[in-house]
Amino acid sequence: MDELRDRERRVLEELQRRLGYTFKNQMLLFNALCHSSYAYELNQIGRDVQDNERLEFLGDAVVELVVCDILYRNYPDSSEGDMAKVKGAVASEEVLTELANEIELGKYIFLGKGEEKTGGRKRSSILADAFEALCAAIYLDGNLESVVKVFGEKLKREIEIFYTGQRIFDYKTALQEITQERFKELPEYKTVKNDENGKFLVELYIQGKKISMGIGNSKKDAEKDAAKKAYEILTRDEN
Amino acid sequence: MDELRDRERRVLEELQRRLGYTFKNQMLLFNALCHSSYAYELNQIGRDVQDNERLEFLGDAVVELVVCDILYRNYPDSSEGDMAKVKGAVASEEVLTELANEIELGKYIFLGKGEEKTGGRKRSSILADAFEALCAAIYLDGNLESVVKVFGEKLKREIEIFYTGQRIFDYKTALQEITQERFKELPEYKTVKNDENGKFLVELYIQGKKISMGIGNSKKDAEKDAAKKAYEILTRDEN
Repeated sequence: MDELRDRERRVLEELQRRLGYTFKNQMLLFNALCHSSYAYELNQIGRDVQDNERLEFLGDAVVELVVCDILYRNYPDSSEGDMAKVKGAVASEEVLTELANEIELGKYIFLGKGEEKTGGRKRSSILADAFEALCAAIYLDGNLESVVKVFGEKLKREIEIFYTGQRIFDYKTALQEITQERFKELPEYKTVKNDENGKFLVELYIQGKKISMGIGNSKKDAEKDAAKKAYEILTRDEN
Repeated sequence: MDELRDRERRVLEELQRRLGYTFKNQMLLFNALCHSSYAYELNQIGRDVQDNERLEFLGDAVVELVVCDILYRNYPDSSEGDMAKVKGAVASEEVLTELANEIELGKYIFLGKGEEKTGGRKRSSILADAFEALCAAIYLDGNLESVVKVFGEKLKREIEIFYTGQRIFDYKTALQEITQERFKELPEYKTVKNDENGKFLVELYIQGKKISMGIGNSKKDAEKDAAKKAYEILTRDEN
């Protein structure tokens, strides 16, 4: 890989101050922040730079293990199924983008000119991928404990948010996962009618059997309501 | 958790000699080897023992990170997509069962009587799950490096087998993954006829377009042959 330019070096320094972690190998950090559009531009002008996609691949596994470790140690009464649900939710693009925004990672990502113009710096997928790549870079530069030191508390907090139910739960998806697993099929929604107040009524069927009924100001809201009720019925049996 | 019985203690000692790793916390190892059927039996007679399901959940993430780490460091020219393919194949029930068999893990698993009678000691899912739980136990007792010390070389070898193409590749599944990702649909197989020699001929369609034709002694073999050809056509474009 190439030598860093002054401007790049300054960006890396600022981010490291922010993270409270200093890389032994600055190129690893640079690599994590290099979006493919930037790497492509630099390669065009003869600089030998890799994009962050391989690091992102590794980072995905790093984040998952940190999350699973927190779940295992801190929630001893949580079942395998519950932990899997929270893991999926926390190691998601949505949450990782939030964490990326918390450290203003967008400011430090190296983007190509085209990507810059079309708002890449704020794009969720770019931010979440860079966050994963950054975790991999810290892991390779230090070890797993280094990642826990930098991001452990933030991940713990996100997990806690899910356990205390503060985050709005996507009941339709959650229900779908359950019915797929248990009955190998998806729930069916039937819009029954709009009632006199313009509300929508939806019935939810699983394996032809009516499970719940939802009401809402739109078809979508009524379906969500039905899914929530069915989800509660199906998971109540578990406890 | 409960005190260990002598018989259990002897089983744990033998396995640790085999692994070349001695647990500071013997209960962690016991926990990893406790199938739910055994934990259930012991709970019935008043012993307080947990099954290995939560450890298996953690172990899944441990194995994945070890595999991704090996891929990242040892295959610098491998793309994110290729690494993902190999990771999926190596961190699979099939390969983990093989690794479990290599250390004769089945001998050391604690099973309930019913599970024992119906051949649980040789069941692939039980072996692979116990292998993951064992990796988690080593990780918690030591750290990630401890797992690498015990199983790193074996996992490296399994990865190398995939890269050198020694393992028979499941083309139908591989093709399915590609068409799902690229075209959001699955390939269609149409049996055309049995030819004069009793061979089956199958045509493979993607998005209504004929991609390849397969031949074999059974419908299944003919489909596999067609999938292999289509897979090669679709991935040839990539290079």
